[in-house]
Amino acid sequence: MAGVAEFTKFPSESLKVGKGFKLAEVDPDTTPGYPGNKADGEALLEELDDKLAELQEKLFAESKFGGTKRVLLILQGMDTAGKGGIVKHVLGAMDPQGVQFKSFKAPTPEERAYDFLWRIEREVPGAGMLGVFDRSHYEDVLIHRVHRWADPKEIERRYKAINEFEARQVAVGTKVIKVMLHISNDEQKERLLARLDNPAKHWKYNTEDLKQRAFWDDYMAAYQAAFDATNTDHAPWYVVPASKKWYARIAVQQLLLEGLGEFDLEWPKAEFDVEAERRLVERS
Amino acid sequence: MAGVAEFTKFPSESLKVGKGFKLAEVDPDTTPGYPGNKADGEALLEELDDKLAELQEKLFAESKFGGTKRVLLILQGMDTAGKGGIVKHVLGAMDPQGVQFKSFKAPTPEERAYDFLWRIEREVPGAGMLGVFDRSHYEDVLIHRVHRWADPKEIERRYKAINEFEARQVAVGTKVIKVMLHISNDEQKERLLARLDNPAKHWKYNTEDLKQRAFWDDYMAAYQAAFDATNTDHAPWYVVPASKKWYARIAVQQLLLEGLGEFDLEWPKAEFDVEAERRLVERS
Repeated sequence: MAGVAEFTKFPSESLKVGKGFKLAEVDPDTTPGYPGNKADGEALLEELDDKLAELQEKLFAESKFGGTKRVLLILQGMDTAGKGGIVKHVLGAMDPQGVQFKSFKAPTPEERAYDFLWRIEREVPGAGMLGVFDRSHYEDVLIHRVHRWADPKEIERRYKAINEFEARQVAVGTKVIKVMLHISNDEQKERLLARLDNPAKHWKYNTEDLKQRAFWDDYMAAYQAAFDATNTDHAPWYVVPASKKWYARIAVQQLLLEGLGEFDLEWPKAEFDVEAERRLVERS
Repeated sequence: MAGVAEFTKFPSESLKVGKGFKLAEVDPDTTPGYPGNKADGEALLEELDDKLAELQEKLFAESKFGGTKRVLLILQGMDTAGKGGIVKHVLGAMDPQGVQFKSFKAPTPEERAYDFLWRIEREVPGAGMLGVFDRSHYEDVLIHRVHRWADPKEIERRYKAINEFEARQVAVGTKVIKVMLHISNDEQKERLLARLDNPAKHWKYNTEDLKQRAFWDDYMAAYQAAFDATNTDHAPWYVVPASKKWYARIAVQQLLLEGLGEFDLEWPKAEFDVEAERRLVERS
């Protein structure tokens, strides 16, 4: 990677939510651990595409021979925080065959008739898959807390249920990576205005977003509370400064590279006699 | 697209299965309608990535405002024909959010307890989605015919059921594009040997493939019979010469571009007052 600026400190360390973490102290405009500029970041993203795709293919390959490893990337953030951009520009580099994507919207009447984890459970990644949740079960402790759709006791019950649910995923071989894309209030305003300026983006503009924007501080408090209650060793949170889109993308790419890297993935060994098989093919 | 060789005749015409079509007369090594070489083809593929991604995004956007259009791309072919490569290199250019991919394997005991279309029905693309089937309900009239797992009367029943099923998809707004990736017997041998030569590809090698290879002629006859019975105006077949991978990819890309192009997709118009909304955001 001659000439492409790399991270000097890994996002898995520098962006990890730790003891005493305060969301209010994170500056969304910064680029922690990365010394390069936008052009450097874009070059790095492209440079590492192939490495990420190879790791994902190895993960997929292992599962064909009994491997149980898998990844669940959870993306949260305020409207316009860039979740869709992560999906397109980071996940898009991998083989669609091995990526299991799910966008969670407001629950349907059927979904509401069950416990909040019912619809989530059905979308968890199978062995060998890289699962991505665009929003998730965290909405049930974020928007529900902000608007008091659930009382404090119920929110506490959900935190506990979430921790148990995520521990179960980890127990079957899932690496759970939870990401909050953190933009500033001003940056959201800029992005909403940019959507209004571009007719090709009007379909993404939802008048509901502005109503939620009015609750900004309550959302930040709800995120802080969620970090306090659900940042576990088995399923840690990462807060990614996201006012610079290019930075958020390379940071999430790194988190995936590091997470997959920890799996020590190898190409599965042939379970057949390669030479004998070659002779059979040649004669066929 | 200065300098990039384009198709002189569209794949939607030149590769379409017509009256009296004979699979035996298609040369898998050719590049119908395309005057360029491999380097040209690779440049074209990359050149048209963005156009394909934009059409797919428009398709997705329309569905958010009641649009019912969608695409179902069905990929069939002998082992090693390149279905996975199409998914990775053609579909991979689009936003994973709008691509619904399903690989059909041998049916599970549960799936076998139902009619053959039961598991297929559950995977059809929703409105706005680009669905891709890697293998499909056609296996039930291909491998089942070759090995006589179903008798001729049952195969006839299935052809009819397939035509009715596909007509139903079209009726709700689906463009059904059925593709057979056609490689030669010799090319399959080369590709199997190449997999054996590369330890990173051993996981893709299945000793079962060689067993199926022994039935090559029967498979070609089963494909021909399937074309004769299920090539309909509403859901036409395209036979894509696929011994040259680069050609198969640009041909399928073109079929998607043309298919999406026929939808006359537009960015949805704002259903809100853009100026009023802008003032609200500015004040927020």
